[in-house]
Amino acid sequence: MLSKKIVKYIQSLSHKKFRDEEGVFIAEGPKVVSEFLSAEIIECKIICAEKEWLFENEILLKNINLENVFEMDEHWLKSISLLKTPNKVAAVFTKKPPVENQNLHDRISLMLDDLQDPGNMGTIIRIADWFGVENIICSEHSVDCYNPKVVQSTMGSLLRVNLIYTNLKLFMKKNKHIPFYAASLSGVSVFKLPKITQGIFLIGNESKGLSEEILKSASQKITIPKAGHAESLNAAVATGIILSQVVFHS
Amino acid sequence: MLSKKIVKYIQSLSHKKFRDEEGVFIAEGPKVVSEFLSAEIIECKIICAEKEWLFENEILLKNINLENVFEMDEHWLKSISLLKTPNKVAAVFTKKPPVENQNLHDRISLMLDDLQDPGNMGTIIRIADWFGVENIICSEHSVDCYNPKVVQSTMGSLLRVNLIYTNLKLFMKKNKHIPFYAASLSGVSVFKLPKITQGIFLIGNESKGLSEEILKSASQKITIPKAGHAESLNAAVATGIILSQVVFHS
Repeated sequence: MLSKKIVKYIQSLSHKKFRDEEGVFIAEGPKVVSEFLSAEIIECKIICAEKEWLFENEILLKNINLENVFEMDEHWLKSISLLKTPNKVAAVFTKKPPVENQNLHDRISLMLDDLQDPGNMGTIIRIADWFGVENIICSEHSVDCYNPKVVQSTMGSLLRVNLIYTNLKLFMKKNKHIPFYAASLSGVSVFKLPKITQGIFLIGNESKGLSEEILKSASQKITIPKAGHAESLNAAVATGIILSQVVFHS
Repeated sequence: MLSKKIVKYIQSLSHKKFRDEEGVFIAEGPKVVSEFLSAEIIECKIICAEKEWLFENEILLKNINLENVFEMDEHWLKSISLLKTPNKVAAVFTKKPPVENQNLHDRISLMLDDLQDPGNMGTIIRIADWFGVENIICSEHSVDCYNPKVVQSTMGSLLRVNLIYTNLKLFMKKNKHIPFYAASLSGVSVFKLPKITQGIFLIGNESKGLSEEILKSASQKITIPKAGHAESLNAAVATGIILSQVVFHS
């Protein structure tokens, strides 16, 4: 009976509305859960795991109230899992505390305008973490970074990168002193940019690109030159190419 | 009744075995199907579409035997669709004729060692098409480029890029005169490579990377330097960054 209640609660967390109300998110699988359990900035609220996993990971559970640890068999884990093959453990964590007054000076940041695909969001968070980009500013309608698919694909990077959901137009107005570079199908080649040590790089929605309003407020349009015929590059790939150029500009 | 038979046949094409036996693949949605119908190197065998789509696209159907055109309502289309929201039209096309003796001289090519994720494969085909890379050599266990998810995400790029499935070790032996650059977590920085006008860039499996055997046969290991903490970059993103550097090396 207890299991049923927990299962229902965890299932509800696949919806952003409930994640926001509760201030928590779900992570699955030994690798992700272990990494999050070792992190100090989030707190584990619930663990559901197979007996074997609990036995082998006792040391990770030392700070967790045993009331919140549930042994579950594969069948039950399957019913809460959002993965194709449920994977030994699922856990509920508190979200990271929001970063107030993130520092955007003397560094490179990213801005996402209505990015929709969880896979792309996860990949972009990993790219940011790879290139040492600390802040990603997202429009309010961008996919939630605590979406289970995003969590699953970013792993530890989610804890190291700050995601700030806000009204982009107002944000750009308030931060006029920082240059905004809009990734677009035309503009200055990323290979011809001067060395940039401070700036925010704007990436648009997967099918619509950047909105007119945002494009107009940008300081400069930049582009990845094309040598072939494809119509466009995937948003995450474009982000990777742009950051690699900017961060390792020689 | 006829519809049922067609539906069963098309459903079978979600399996590589049947696609190989029949030498065909399935494409869905107005954009992809229109692009493929205009291509000369593949032949349309079956079209299933809503009445409205057939009416609006009569001109695209001028070379197709009407016996192979089936009007279907949303319900039937849904039963053959592999997309979340079936999209007006689905069609069966013959695969591209294989390219014999692809030219690997004086150009940049890609080689994929057991790439598994259809999304990554689709993205890499688009990247190749963007950067004018004509040939992708894939290990025999790499995901099929006619997998419906790959087809859906590559669109026209699938027709412009040659995919060759073969034994990579033998292929490398036969092409010893061409330099092979292995993308890896260590090696020469891609930003420090000399100008390369001929070479094959090796990308590994999503979780295991390149196999030991392949790594050993490569001419040089190359890497994308890291400025942050992520464990790895997504395979498609790494491909994009490497090709952007090599193709637009200044």
